[in-house]
Amino acid sequence: MLKLDLSKIAPFVGDDLAAVYEELPRAHDYLINKTGRGNDFLGWVNLPFDYDKEEYARLKAAAARIREDSDVLVVIGIGGSYLGARAAIEYLRSPNYNLIKKDTPEIYFAGNNISGTALRELFGLIEGKRVSVNVISKSGTTTEPAIAFRLFKSYMEERYGKEEAARRIYATTDKARGALKGLADGEGYETFVIPDDVGGRYSVLTPVGLLPIAVAGIDTDRLLAGAAAAAEEYQKPGLDNTAWQYAAARNALYRKGYTTEILASYEPAFRFVSEWWKQLYGESEGKENKGIFPASVDLTADLHSMGQYIQQGLRNLMETVVNFEKTREDMIVGTDAANADGLNFLAGKTLSEINLAAIRGTALAHVDGGVPNLRIDLSDMEEEDFGRLIYFFEFACGLSGYLLEVNPFDQPGVEAYKKNMFALLGKPGYEKETEEIKKRL
Amino acid sequence: MLKLDLSKIAPFVGDDLAAVYEELPRAHDYLINKTGRGNDFLGWVNLPFDYDKEEYARLKAAAARIREDSDVLVVIGIGGSYLGARAAIEYLRSPNYNLIKKDTPEIYFAGNNISGTALRELFGLIEGKRVSVNVISKSGTTTEPAIAFRLFKSYMEERYGKEEAARRIYATTDKARGALKGLADGEGYETFVIPDDVGGRYSVLTPVGLLPIAVAGIDTDRLLAGAAAAAEEYQKPGLDNTAWQYAAARNALYRKGYTTEILASYEPAFRFVSEWWKQLYGESEGKENKGIFPASVDLTADLHSMGQYIQQGLRNLMETVVNFEKTREDMIVGTDAANADGLNFLAGKTLSEINLAAIRGTALAHVDGGVPNLRIDLSDMEEEDFGRLIYFFEFACGLSGYLLEVNPFDQPGVEAYKKNMFALLGKPGYEKETEEIKKRL
Repeated sequence: MLKLDLSKIAPFVGDDLAAVYEELPRAHDYLINKTGRGNDFLGWVNLPFDYDKEEYARLKAAAARIREDSDVLVVIGIGGSYLGARAAIEYLRSPNYNLIKKDTPEIYFAGNNISGTALRELFGLIEGKRVSVNVISKSGTTTEPAIAFRLFKSYMEERYGKEEAARRIYATTDKARGALKGLADGEGYETFVIPDDVGGRYSVLTPVGLLPIAVAGIDTDRLLAGAAAAAEEYQKPGLDNTAWQYAAARNALYRKGYTTEILASYEPAFRFVSEWWKQLYGESEGKENKGIFPASVDLTADLHSMGQYIQQGLRNLMETVVNFEKTREDMIVGTDAANADGLNFLAGKTLSEINLAAIRGTALAHVDGGVPNLRIDLSDMEEEDFGRLIYFFEFACGLSGYLLEVNPFDQPGVEAYKKNMFALLGKPGYEKETEEIKKRL
Repeated sequence: MLKLDLSKIAPFVGDDLAAVYEELPRAHDYLINKTGRGNDFLGWVNLPFDYDKEEYARLKAAAARIREDSDVLVVIGIGGSYLGARAAIEYLRSPNYNLIKKDTPEIYFAGNNISGTALRELFGLIEGKRVSVNVISKSGTTTEPAIAFRLFKSYMEERYGKEEAARRIYATTDKARGALKGLADGEGYETFVIPDDVGGRYSVLTPVGLLPIAVAGIDTDRLLAGAAAAAEEYQKPGLDNTAWQYAAARNALYRKGYTTEILASYEPAFRFVSEWWKQLYGESEGKENKGIFPASVDLTADLHSMGQYIQQGLRNLMETVVNFEKTREDMIVGTDAANADGLNFLAGKTLSEINLAAIRGTALAHVDGGVPNLRIDLSDMEEEDFGRLIYFFEFACGLSGYLLEVNPFDQPGVEAYKKNMFALLGKPGYEKETEEIKKRL
């Protein structure tokens, strides 16, 4: 179950919300009937029903094999090729997944930076352990994962020999074209497909996300079932559509000058869900010199760091809080005879009860301080509701982009740094750019 | 060595920079001669020289004892009582500190949230290991750490007996007053002092930060020496003062409408330094409905998530990049005969060289996209320069707050959520607030 509470934005949006609602049928139609900008990338809309069942069975078998024959899975990917899986694993298992006792492999994410310090450390962490690698790249030439994979490929071949290394490397890539697909076919890696019509930030429910998620021992059937239930719900147009309500609320607030949205949760496990959400919304909306800036906080920790700013800083902030009616675990505050800390008034209360008081008290405080507060409630921290949340955010994001009148499915700005970087590195074919950029430095 | 490159803000600030420089002598005087608002909290200014040497020797002895008799140190604190230590440990040792091979104890941070899931997991993680606890709280009654400490105190006493538990609990707190000081004296905990004139977000170089940092095997002498060198440098007024330059640049940009500052680094180990920085700046400046909103990104990872927004979104962003001339470790890209990934043009290059091309290429791309870019260069990722960076950010933050005409050393907004939370929880003394808040829900 996913509920949205908009009662704490009323004083901030006024009549603008009604105006936005009038634009929603068109945005909805763009997504359902593929009639808007970026309509080549709408494969995610029906993905929870409409996926390759044979491949999915093969993926689950591969995950079972990795759990059986490996102590470590190294996942090589950047952006949408790692954020979804990492979010799911931290959220559904633990932010300390690699530290906790478990009967599933450790999972490390590589190829999402160019740090020699980080990469060398990773090679130290996997020493002596049985390793499998999942390399995730549509093209196989994105610099960060390509560098990491080049190093891991030679590590695996040196350690296991070419044949066994090939058996331990899994490539998630284009179905037919590209450097990684060619290499995988040549070397005999098992491959999984990144569909042509699903962009990176929408790919968590494709093999991109599902293979590492399954290796972590998470029930992907339940995840997909939750997403499917959400798809059924949010594909129905109407004012009671929760995805409509979220898209409308944030867009109306944006028009009123609330140009930064802070996603907040009171569970540390949620942190990488926020990172995934930041890519989803930031990359979908941040173009043509507009868009809501996505930020995130971990509460209550950050009430003691960003809390001051949120309460009394520049008033261009809105806040969306994700709350859970039932958390995974709980503890009870005990009684202390001396009561030196003055906490006996909490004795017998669960941390969840206290946390809920913090959530409700903070929402009121922030609204009083001039920050519109949206609240999303999930039933629990399990697979179905997480699948539901993913699809909810995806669908609302598509709507939001169209309300903003941008193409929610491209990312033209991501090329700019790559072009300069290639020019500086003297990549063949960039001779003219190399000459030009050298003049600027 | 710490250098600041402002060459990429010139097109954005125009004459405003000169105007801000005229205001800096007064702001500087406020800090040095304690003549401005919040002047009760300027103990950090001379802290790198002016600290209790006897206590510092005792602190190092305690750290050595914890390293000797414990497998785990649990650090209980929130906000400034954990961010500085966590930043230092992740940055100078590793963001995977608890996973890497080492001869120093694991360190876990507790009491910075109200999550039963997180706390129960932590009790699982320390099972069977020898534990010490460092509880950090000026008053001892801040809800989050007080709850965690109540649970850990009874865990320690049950496990070790009262006497041995008391020997394994270290309290960093007020020198004379407060619930924790009273309790510590009563129970016989070794105590360390949070000075009266140093606020939480400025406390990393007091025992608040130094005890956990020393337990992690970091050389605190070198850290303090770097901070002392920085103090000597930045306490001299003048246009060549790098702290002046940073404070002036960001303030001038703020006046031009660049109201969000993104702190960026290309080393994953930097992430919690950014979290520490966000508290420092957000809590110091975010008041009276003004202040720069502090955000952070981990690059190059986030070039594939937030990168699109930074390149082409709403143009209210400035970016400060922290770069290292020498990283801790490095790796070299090898040659591959097939060159399927097209990376042979990088063969023989170090990851540092490639990372530097990303840093320079990205700066140019973002400037072309309308984002002013500031760059801080450190010599390396070691203790001295980290101490230098801490003091640099602290001093520049004090200046920045005065330029903004706020009190950089208070945090009146942090109380708002606490008041509501206590009212909702029925804390004795909050009867009137309880009645009022119930009407609102």
